[in-house]
Amino acid sequence: MNDQNKNKNESWVQYISMSPPGLNDNTADVDRLTAQLKKQLDLQSIDMDRSLMVLLPQVLRKSNFNVRCVLFGSDNRYQLLDVQPSDDSLPVYGMAIDLGTTRVVSRLLDLCNQCTIIETTIDNPQGKIAPDVLARIHYTDQPGGLEHLQQLIIDGINGQIQQMCKTNQVDSAQIMCMSIAGNTCMTHLFSGLPPQSIIREPYIPVINQQMLLNASELGIQINPRAKIFVFPNIGSYFGGDLISGILALDMHHQTETSIMVDVGTNAEVVLGNKDWMIACAGAAGPALESGVSKIGMTAGPGAIERMKQDHDSFTWQTIDNEKPVGICGSGFIDLAAVLFQAKMLDIRGKFVPDQCKDRLLNIDDMMHFLVVPADISATGKDLTISQVDIDSLIRSKAAMYTILSTITQSVGMNLNDISKFYVAGTFGAYIDPASAITIGMIPDLPLNRYQSAGNTSIAGATRVLLSRKNIESVSEIHKHITYMELNVNQEFMNRFSAAKFLPHTDTTLFPSVKI
Amino acid sequence: MNDQNKNKNESWVQYISMSPPGLNDNTADVDRLTAQLKKQLDLQSIDMDRSLMVLLPQVLRKSNFNVRCVLFGSDNRYQLLDVQPSDDSLPVYGMAIDLGTTRVVSRLLDLCNQCTIIETTIDNPQGKIAPDVLARIHYTDQPGGLEHLQQLIIDGINGQIQQMCKTNQVDSAQIMCMSIAGNTCMTHLFSGLPPQSIIREPYIPVINQQMLLNASELGIQINPRAKIFVFPNIGSYFGGDLISGILALDMHHQTETSIMVDVGTNAEVVLGNKDWMIACAGAAGPALESGVSKIGMTAGPGAIERMKQDHDSFTWQTIDNEKPVGICGSGFIDLAAVLFQAKMLDIRGKFVPDQCKDRLLNIDDMMHFLVVPADISATGKDLTISQVDIDSLIRSKAAMYTILSTITQSVGMNLNDISKFYVAGTFGAYIDPASAITIGMIPDLPLNRYQSAGNTSIAGATRVLLSRKNIESVSEIHKHITYMELNVNQEFMNRFSAAKFLPHTDTTLFPSVKI
Repeated sequence: MNDQNKNKNESWVQYISMSPPGLNDNTADVDRLTAQLKKQLDLQSIDMDRSLMVLLPQVLRKSNFNVRCVLFGSDNRYQLLDVQPSDDSLPVYGMAIDLGTTRVVSRLLDLCNQCTIIETTIDNPQGKIAPDVLARIHYTDQPGGLEHLQQLIIDGINGQIQQMCKTNQVDSAQIMCMSIAGNTCMTHLFSGLPPQSIIREPYIPVINQQMLLNASELGIQINPRAKIFVFPNIGSYFGGDLISGILALDMHHQTETSIMVDVGTNAEVVLGNKDWMIACAGAAGPALESGVSKIGMTAGPGAIERMKQDHDSFTWQTIDNEKPVGICGSGFIDLAAVLFQAKMLDIRGKFVPDQCKDRLLNIDDMMHFLVVPADISATGKDLTISQVDIDSLIRSKAAMYTILSTITQSVGMNLNDISKFYVAGTFGAYIDPASAITIGMIPDLPLNRYQSAGNTSIAGATRVLLSRKNIESVSEIHKHITYMELNVNQEFMNRFSAAKFLPHTDTTLFPSVKI
Repeated sequence: MNDQNKNKNESWVQYISMSPPGLNDNTADVDRLTAQLKKQLDLQSIDMDRSLMVLLPQVLRKSNFNVRCVLFGSDNRYQLLDVQPSDDSLPVYGMAIDLGTTRVVSRLLDLCNQCTIIETTIDNPQGKIAPDVLARIHYTDQPGGLEHLQQLIIDGINGQIQQMCKTNQVDSAQIMCMSIAGNTCMTHLFSGLPPQSIIREPYIPVINQQMLLNASELGIQINPRAKIFVFPNIGSYFGGDLISGILALDMHHQTETSIMVDVGTNAEVVLGNKDWMIACAGAAGPALESGVSKIGMTAGPGAIERMKQDHDSFTWQTIDNEKPVGICGSGFIDLAAVLFQAKMLDIRGKFVPDQCKDRLLNIDDMMHFLVVPADISATGKDLTISQVDIDSLIRSKAAMYTILSTITQSVGMNLNDISKFYVAGTFGAYIDPASAITIGMIPDLPLNRYQSAGNTSIAGATRVLLSRKNIESVSEIHKHITYMELNVNQEFMNRFSAAKFLPHTDTTLFPSVKI
């Protein structure tokens, strides 16, 4: 079997030829089709809705028992979603969704040609009610709160569907399946499952297993028989978006050990290879997102995303080359690295007045470093970073490094043994690994081992719609992962304290960083 | 494990105790419950609707993780239908239905105490549109015909539900599951599946497999999450009512070989034991139902159900001891046996004028035998049987005997090897085996091997609601049965011709019949 046929065999769209019934072969219609499908695809079980059975006799006889089937499902238990005559069949679409707390990315896929047609991004409409996971869960404590949040995201996704279908002249009734990868809270809110226990000790989701939901029951406006695959979680703090990421990066097939890090308010980390996989999540602090320093912001037009030292002066680069408005995570890490290497920050991360000279300002009794003077900023005000902002960054980077070294040591490995270091998400797309190494946030590995992984969540969600093998991998990955609770015990705290220096108390861990 | 615990373990209502979650056991709610259920009941898979997941967190915490679950399903794949706190739970009901062409028998069952509460019977409301299978299928050829017939039976069953619930002060929302045993056409019409191919060569049902349908989708007014188990068919002419009958009689567990016969317009026969089972169906002719002779009728008040010879005169017994209106199948067989033994019928089944004397009347140029004179009949008219009626009965009894001997010989057995002979249905309840042997309709076995089996269809439908083991037996029986097409070839016709004598051309087959 060549690769193309292999891929065809992995598609959710399958062509089936049966011998027509006769007096010596009076197998019933449903039984005839499911038997042939099970044989052709080596399946354990295939189910069919009654509403499809009703249509089957006519389709089989009209097509002389040569039909095209659309399937979907997982764990070798599939649902037959549609049957049409082979010679006379309509396109089949799928929809992959990365359900982020902040943004929702949707992709319309052509399942026959196994390609993406269009991708759109919207702000998660639940953000209007409450910006983050915690606030949204609190909002569900009030009567109707859960239903309201669920309706907002359903409406948002329906809007994306409508827009993409209109632009591409696609009939939304031909979208037969959907995959949703999101963090545990977002998939609970999407599914209407009460999320309250997620944030309360002992932090219990309603469900960790993957789900196959009915589009019609949720009010998702695609084919009424369509099914929605919701990625499984590992726990309250390790969601389906990460499982989707592992799938996208193919970590579960690799012989060499790799690590994937997704950084937000929490750092989610998974380490492993084809034989084992260990995951953990820990608070990394808010320093790497917006909202800590006065000038901190998420990556957007005018955000300083990159800083360099050019002899005595600093140069920066903003998103869209606009006048600087603030600084995003990657710019902040660059800044700290630059200041440290210019000896303007000492190994404890404190401003060194002798080196900072007139860039150090005392504002409200606190030391501030002048990043961009008022006359060239977009705001007309000085853009400054305070000692408190730097302290916060140090704690975040120390937490990050401690989590990475803890998970690695838990399996008896050394950080140097990691052959590939994937940084997922927006953060991964902007961060300069050299700067992150300089401040001791990530291990001192050769730079070519670092790889920005992009939006692995949408990539994995896409994969399960393009291949049955990929959806089967999801439950394998899910079973495969050992979740490690990060015990914030004395040893962890000792490691954390040692990591609160630039780059680290043990400088031999960072040989490439010249101090 | 004693028998009572065994039975409890087989119930669809199960009590489950879980250890509550903690920081060292943060399994999600759904996963915790399904894992415990799978372990406790040794299940492969258990699914849960999203609408139940939504309720789960509160029920688990309110009950301190001690709950009562209601399950239903088959093939070791179950659906969790309800979860309530163990200490605080409502009754659970099920509904078993024998979906006959003529009559619909429904039983309301208490699934906690595993007993029947009430049984009701209605005429199948589809009978108003078309009396028999053939006419109903033809009716579905017209637009909306299938939907109309489906709605009639759904409404009929809903009426039974409503009445039984009202009488017994049961909340219909507490009926969580239903089982339906009927012939292939009736279950197709109930499920809204197009039945047209059932009666057209090569006679193909839409489905032979068992189904688990959603009550809400069909409009059956019980719990919206309730599931309906539809018994599988073997083919167009061997329906789920027979599978249900095999289950009820426990034929699939018996070491000795038994046979079950259900007689209507078709004779359906199944022969076998715990190791093998063979089935066939064949036209028995309408003589054993109503509608052939002018005085033929279905069993009802005033029908002659029993006839005997008392010296020179005949005595009869009518249903409800009313004045005779007509004669039903069992009475007709008795009559033929009596006439034959009185030598009023010869071995070809022809009236013997010398013996019949003045009871033989010539009406419209045809010989008629006077069964009941006008002065004592309920109609005020002579009740007579014509030579044509007798000829028709002879053909029916010959067909029956030929089918029985053909199926028995197909497995290399002799009719005498049958250790138990079950006669199902209303016919079985009334027929006198001695008379049927006398006319050579059924084999000349010791009378104690014959057993009237009653309504085995409702009995089997009840069984699957009372025990998981029984529902698992259904698919075992289904796989187990070999369906034999009755080839009406020269050999069959030879056998049929030999059986058209009273009792048979080969009188050594009927040693007990004194001629």
